[in-house]
Amino acid sequence: MLPHGFEFAGVSCGIKTIPGREDLSLVVCRSGAVAAGVYTTNRVFAAPVALDRERTPSSDIRVVITNSGNANACTGERGLRDAQEMARLAATAVGAGPEQALVMSTGVIGEFLPMDKIAAGIASAGKQLGGDEAAFMAAVRGMMTTDRGPKVAFRTTTVAGRDVRLAGMAKGAGMIGPKMATMLGVITTDAALSPESAQAALAAAVEESFNAISVEGHMSTNDTVLLLAGGAAGGELIGDDLQSFQHALTELCTELAKQIPDDGEGATHLIAIDVRGCGARKDADAIARAIANSALVKTAVHGGDPNWGRIVSAAGYAGVAFDPAQVSLCINGHLLYERGAPAPFDAAAVSQSMKANRETTVVLSVGDGPAACRHWTSDLTVEYVKFNADYHT
Amino acid sequence: MLPHGFEFAGVSCGIKTIPGREDLSLVVCRSGAVAAGVYTTNRVFAAPVALDRERTPSSDIRVVITNSGNANACTGERGLRDAQEMARLAATAVGAGPEQALVMSTGVIGEFLPMDKIAAGIASAGKQLGGDEAAFMAAVRGMMTTDRGPKVAFRTTTVAGRDVRLAGMAKGAGMIGPKMATMLGVITTDAALSPESAQAALAAAVEESFNAISVEGHMSTNDTVLLLAGGAAGGELIGDDLQSFQHALTELCTELAKQIPDDGEGATHLIAIDVRGCGARKDADAIARAIANSALVKTAVHGGDPNWGRIVSAAGYAGVAFDPAQVSLCINGHLLYERGAPAPFDAAAVSQSMKANRETTVVLSVGDGPAACRHWTSDLTVEYVKFNADYHT
Repeated sequence: MLPHGFEFAGVSCGIKTIPGREDLSLVVCRSGAVAAGVYTTNRVFAAPVALDRERTPSSDIRVVITNSGNANACTGERGLRDAQEMARLAATAVGAGPEQALVMSTGVIGEFLPMDKIAAGIASAGKQLGGDEAAFMAAVRGMMTTDRGPKVAFRTTTVAGRDVRLAGMAKGAGMIGPKMATMLGVITTDAALSPESAQAALAAAVEESFNAISVEGHMSTNDTVLLLAGGAAGGELIGDDLQSFQHALTELCTELAKQIPDDGEGATHLIAIDVRGCGARKDADAIARAIANSALVKTAVHGGDPNWGRIVSAAGYAGVAFDPAQVSLCINGHLLYERGAPAPFDAAAVSQSMKANRETTVVLSVGDGPAACRHWTSDLTVEYVKFNADYHT
Repeated sequence: MLPHGFEFAGVSCGIKTIPGREDLSLVVCRSGAVAAGVYTTNRVFAAPVALDRERTPSSDIRVVITNSGNANACTGERGLRDAQEMARLAATAVGAGPEQALVMSTGVIGEFLPMDKIAAGIASAGKQLGGDEAAFMAAVRGMMTTDRGPKVAFRTTTVAGRDVRLAGMAKGAGMIGPKMATMLGVITTDAALSPESAQAALAAAVEESFNAISVEGHMSTNDTVLLLAGGAAGGELIGDDLQSFQHALTELCTELAKQIPDDGEGATHLIAIDVRGCGARKDADAIARAIANSALVKTAVHGGDPNWGRIVSAAGYAGVAFDPAQVSLCINGHLLYERGAPAPFDAAAVSQSMKANRETTVVLSVGDGPAACRHWTSDLTVEYVKFNADYHT
């Protein structure tokens, strides 16, 4: 099930305040992996993001070191030095050069890393590396913060007669902040890819998956998704074979990404938002994002209220030109609004279907254009507010 | 206190379901007022917005008819005809021509106006017009929806040796949606202005006031602010005198606008956000808006948590270029973050000051540029979520 050529470890080294909770993990490819990365576009980005950005795409990464419980963000020059030292320590632990490591951090903003604990954790993790599922799951737990459970996805696909495996792990439940989760992901594969192909494949997959989710729309300082392609499956993928791999990668990223808003802090519903009929994908994307970020849409879904006015009006302020008279809207398959006018519908039946299902599906059509997209978000609940208001630093 | 030359009325005509609650109002200037308007930029805009947009700026408006309880939004061609009929009925009631009326509606989206009730209400209001405060306050109540109380502001200023009076009314507590408030405002003045001066003065005042507030950031289909300048004070204002009037108008609009997030649905705090040191005002505005719309910032203020990481990271995704190493942040006068690094501060004291005061002031400096702005928003509370999730159509 796991790709050939990788080892994993997750340990507890005392960064998190809860004793025994894993807070440091290693993902290792001793033979060297092609590595690609996609990062937060926040102007205020954390030290590990600065380090990884410089090092990817790469043709030879041996280890990814991740810690949770401290984001190493807004920590200035010292934070950068700490990230470099983390990379160096992890590389040494697996017999690699200091430049052959990538770093991810998540957790509290604005505090310096406890480097003594991290050094001890890396030494300990280096001795516990394994290629089995138990080791993989320990690594996943090592990157969790407010997540209720581990987020993983797996694919095996046949490309050019060879079995290619992909295994992804991610974390995230709220976007950011002291004590809050941020979004991190690592996808390992034994496919053989060039650095350029890996980077392009990851960027395309992220666009439809991790870039199409939100909880409350607050962009993190630490968001990072890495792809490590170890190459143990042999035969560098190009052309149609690369396309097949791309398809599997996008599917896996989507499965992984959806788990984040589904586990959104306090969430009781996963909301899928399909926007259709746009002239360009970026327009569909902007409309879906405006709907996904509307507190009024999110509270309506939480309450099981088929409140189409909130959805249509959110689309209207997305900054995209469309003709309101061409707009139609369905919720869970029920037509509520048709070509700019209210459609008669059974409000009780729609409300019932929203309350009975964890997932609510909104389909908004704004015209006859060819472009579409799908976003996912959480509903907004009393528990979200309590969690983020009452849990003090 | 009230400007000379205006009459007001507010009546209950049965649009709202609560018996006796005012839901229709008239603002009348029998001598004809110069009128200016600023409207929602939502692509999905209500019928009355379409009508007013065509009619302003104007040199001769006699009446503004407003109803609450029904937004006449997403109602297609029939909605447009209804808005025109409302205007015609109101104009007739005060002996004006059908084109000399403006219309505002607020309330439920997607339902047709009960035109019989509106016609009866206009007839009734036309008989109750008065120039005193009681009539003015009845007109204010006629535009309220989820507002806890009337929002009004008054100014008297001396321009070119003449007393000039301004009286403003506004409504709004949540941005939009069936059963939800949207933002409406009418400012009456006896100053004499040209239509062009009135439009420019209103646009400038709105930019610093109504365009700088939010509750949850969901832009309404019905937002409308009107300025009616009756001219009874005499002597058309130009040059420095116009500047003096502008100053008073901006002050009045700001006083009125702040009342909206202060009365935000479920709000326990008014949050003032000062952004300084930008290259251009639009940059400061974009940063303030990103902070104001962050659920994590709003819940932190609600909880009395001086969570500067959430504020700085929200600034980072506003789409404005700045150097993170130049960023400093104060909350209620306490320095928390200085030139890109955490500043030592007494967290308990800052938290106490946030909890003890209704208003929390955030000052974010991002560089040495000359531009700045101030926005106001509400905090995000359990009551906001309950109100918008549990109150069904």
